[in-house]
Amino acid sequence: MTAFTLDVRLDADTYSVTDLALSRVLLMNDARFPWLILVPRRADCTEWLDFSTEDQQQLLQEQLRVMTVLQELTGAHKLNVANLGNMVRQFHLHIIARFETDLAWPGPVWGQGVREEYVEAKTHSLISALQRALT
Amino acid sequence: MTAFTLDVRLDADTYSVTDLALSRVLLMNDARFPWLILVPRRADCTEWLDFSTEDQQQLLQEQLRVMTVLQELTGAHKLNVANLGNMVRQFHLHIIARFETDLAWPGPVWGQGVREEYVEAKTHSLISALQRALT
Repeated sequence: MTAFTLDVRLDADTYSVTDLALSRVLLMNDARFPWLILVPRRADCTEWLDFSTEDQQQLLQEQLRVMTVLQELTGAHKLNVANLGNMVRQFHLHIIARFETDLAWPGPVWGQGVREEYVEAKTHSLISALQRALT
Repeated sequence: MTAFTLDVRLDADTYSVTDLALSRVLLMNDARFPWLILVPRRADCTEWLDFSTEDQQQLLQEQLRVMTVLQELTGAHKLNVANLGNMVRQFHLHIIARFETDLAWPGPVWGQGVREEYVEAKTHSLISALQRALT
């Protein structure tokens, strides 16, 4: 079994928030959208179908937990949940807080304009709030 | 409890394939992408979080089953799985077979160009194959 290492592109584009039982929780470094990414710490998985039944169950539980926290912290109008993986094959699940006033609404966020990196102080407070809620 | 009725826009854009225990399975009428949509027959749900624990489990099982069938029928290079719901609020889960040669690759399919309706004979054979595999 290959050891898990985070994809270099996911690593470059995100901040690490915390590790849940199965998944690493990442914050996309894009101040335009509150955008979390779950990456199960399993090597060589690209589809939901590649995980064991136990991991699929755990992933669903972690998805729901992260959705709840993100909804409560942001008051989002809608959450977008997606595994696409057309560019980065390592399985990763997007959980994004959407607002009727955001820059991409009502379209999806992928491929919309240019990522805006967080100002450092804002990132720290957001990551701290997520860590408190998730651990 | 409000009775379930399929959203009019989902109804207009799709063919009905079959009803699983929880979800109606729809085929998006877009010949560019093999694209299924699961709609749990529950009124007034917009998020994964709105369903009971039992329904969440069942929805995951139906998602996995439909992914397996779509993968086997199409030989997709990647499956895209998403609940967005920014435009149509009735909960619906997209399960889309993606190919490195398709028109939107590697971007997402939403908002890409214009939907191409199926030729009728092709639809019938695809729906029949899906029905055989799912029932």
